[in-house]
Amino acid sequence: MNIIRPTLLVDELKCRTHIERMNKIAVQSNVIFRPHFKTHQSQAIGSWFRDAGVTRITTSSLVMAEYFAADGWDDITVAFPVNYLEYDLINSLAARIQLNLCTVSLASLEKLADRLKHKIHIFIEIDTGYGRTGIDPADLDTINQFIQFIEQEKYMSFAGFLSHAGHSYKCRSKAEIEKVHRASFKSAIALKEKFIHAHPTLAYSIGDTPTCSVVDNFSGVDEIRPGNFIFYDVTQNEIGSCSMDAIAVALACPVVAIHPLKNEIVIHGGAVHLSKDSVVLKNGIQIFGRVATLSDRGWNPMPESYHVKSISQEHGIISVPAESLDQFKIGDRVGVLPVHSCLTADCMGGYTTLQGEKLDHF
Amino acid sequence: MNIIRPTLLVDELKCRTHIERMNKIAVQSNVIFRPHFKTHQSQAIGSWFRDAGVTRITTSSLVMAEYFAADGWDDITVAFPVNYLEYDLINSLAARIQLNLCTVSLASLEKLADRLKHKIHIFIEIDTGYGRTGIDPADLDTINQFIQFIEQEKYMSFAGFLSHAGHSYKCRSKAEIEKVHRASFKSAIALKEKFIHAHPTLAYSIGDTPTCSVVDNFSGVDEIRPGNFIFYDVTQNEIGSCSMDAIAVALACPVVAIHPLKNEIVIHGGAVHLSKDSVVLKNGIQIFGRVATLSDRGWNPMPESYHVKSISQEHGIISVPAESLDQFKIGDRVGVLPVHSCLTADCMGGYTTLQGEKLDHF
Repeated sequence: MNIIRPTLLVDELKCRTHIERMNKIAVQSNVIFRPHFKTHQSQAIGSWFRDAGVTRITTSSLVMAEYFAADGWDDITVAFPVNYLEYDLINSLAARIQLNLCTVSLASLEKLADRLKHKIHIFIEIDTGYGRTGIDPADLDTINQFIQFIEQEKYMSFAGFLSHAGHSYKCRSKAEIEKVHRASFKSAIALKEKFIHAHPTLAYSIGDTPTCSVVDNFSGVDEIRPGNFIFYDVTQNEIGSCSMDAIAVALACPVVAIHPLKNEIVIHGGAVHLSKDSVVLKNGIQIFGRVATLSDRGWNPMPESYHVKSISQEHGIISVPAESLDQFKIGDRVGVLPVHSCLTADCMGGYTTLQGEKLDHF
Repeated sequence: MNIIRPTLLVDELKCRTHIERMNKIAVQSNVIFRPHFKTHQSQAIGSWFRDAGVTRITTSSLVMAEYFAADGWDDITVAFPVNYLEYDLINSLAARIQLNLCTVSLASLEKLADRLKHKIHIFIEIDTGYGRTGIDPADLDTINQFIQFIEQEKYMSFAGFLSHAGHSYKCRSKAEIEKVHRASFKSAIALKEKFIHAHPTLAYSIGDTPTCSVVDNFSGVDEIRPGNFIFYDVTQNEIGSCSMDAIAVALACPVVAIHPLKNEIVIHGGAVHLSKDSVVLKNGIQIFGRVATLSDRGWNPMPESYHVKSISQEHGIISVPAESLDQFKIGDRVGVLPVHSCLTADCMGGYTTLQGEKLDHF
């Protein structure tokens, strides 16, 4: 493969291994595996999930749901507070597939109810500690109000509760992730127990990659929705969710300059390719990516001392250990393992497999 | 205009005013105005520059140069260290337009020279203090080596020197910007004087939005290449380059949730729309955008106390002053003025004018 400009490589084998592993955890726990497709946003990569038996998926927007519905996915949860202004697309999707939406606002549900022409399934989003959005699980009055409203509407069906323990992203060890999970999970189970008798079909859906990578038993809830695990990234490695070897995407970047006095190499690969996301390593250094050597069979992560120290729109500046510059020359291609693979994939808008095949991105 | 999901609005009148103003500064200083098109990346917006008499442009990649060459631009500088691996595209462009490339590496020029079939013009990039890339202006031996190499090559022509005082982005007042500019400009002029007699046609090209927004006389150099000024953004306002009213793009975002207990509203508008870039305000708070009220005639910036405090892939969380939540309701559209307009435009991949017209983005 002759790479001449920034190219997002994907290692299909690693991805399929991650899918199999997560699927197994779901099967063992007897919960539905409804992966979040916002990370890859690719019909081609979606087919790898289909090969593993996945039939239900999650997206982060209605237009992304439409993209996957067009590829035959017919049971999709949009894990984002429903925006009633999108009622036309909601109706058009709900006419064709099982569409599961998510709510945190009764006002929004009321506006939507007037405009629905097809049945939708509604999860009430619960905030089990992340603090981004969702109803407080202790606020039973509000939750009851939501359920009552949903159940009286002809085109609405109460699906259950959904939460995202996004505060697991602040963890920096498996022990911390497990601690966040225990508190969040306990809160979920307690809420489910309060409502399951009156609403025996309700499901409780949880899921974030750190938790789903570290915990292997989810018995008690009904569904997991991890997304990032398909690729993982440097942030997940820092959190403690994955090894560096597990990262399944790398941005191949040409070396365009070498600065011996500063122990830096300049690559074509910047914020429009990697995104501007960064992570602070345990040693206190903020980085925009880690470095890997590329080969025909994929890539090998280099030590942490090789990292992208800064980026601008198209430039990436890689810091390398003193006396290691002779490993690089102009025209070489180096791999950058992204800080946040979802955003890198979104910036790049497509993938190239190690076999040279191009894969779509929404 | 019925906005139902995140939409990047552009105020054409503001943009044209910014173009006219910058053009006037260039005319007064008797320097070429070669705007950087990496900010807007739009053929339609490029035509607004053409209307103002601009005939020479800058891009940050060869593929972007190709996009604008296809729209009739025939004198393009790619202000990025040339990557010789792209020789096919270089030849194809150089056959059709005046292509000006930029170098910081003799090794790269040597590799390129063997592959050239058409004349290219080469700027040597000089580091006048930013520290990202470029040759030290005191390193006259290296500079002479470059010039000697270029001048002996059949398909290479020495165009001059190019620098980018990107350290102006660290400034937080006009006085600081002027200080950065004085040092950088002095260094440029001194270098030009050393070489102008032996190379009377050489040009010195400079340009960054903070400097070009604050300084109004560039006599002594030959060309300015600002880019961001077409839109400006919250970062430029923090730097001291522009007023909030000057910002010419706003992301219109639907309100999907309101959290009275936290004084927060949740919008559909996140990292895939705004980019993950942030800026730290003078009060020490890190923000991902400022807020504006939208109207048919554009938008009005709200006070700094209204700001995007955090973003994830599709969510934006806006912090508002206590007791101000009743200004917002579900389904409202609010404007977010981006922290970094170049990256927001790149994420959105297109614009909508205040008249509802869709504009392209590379």
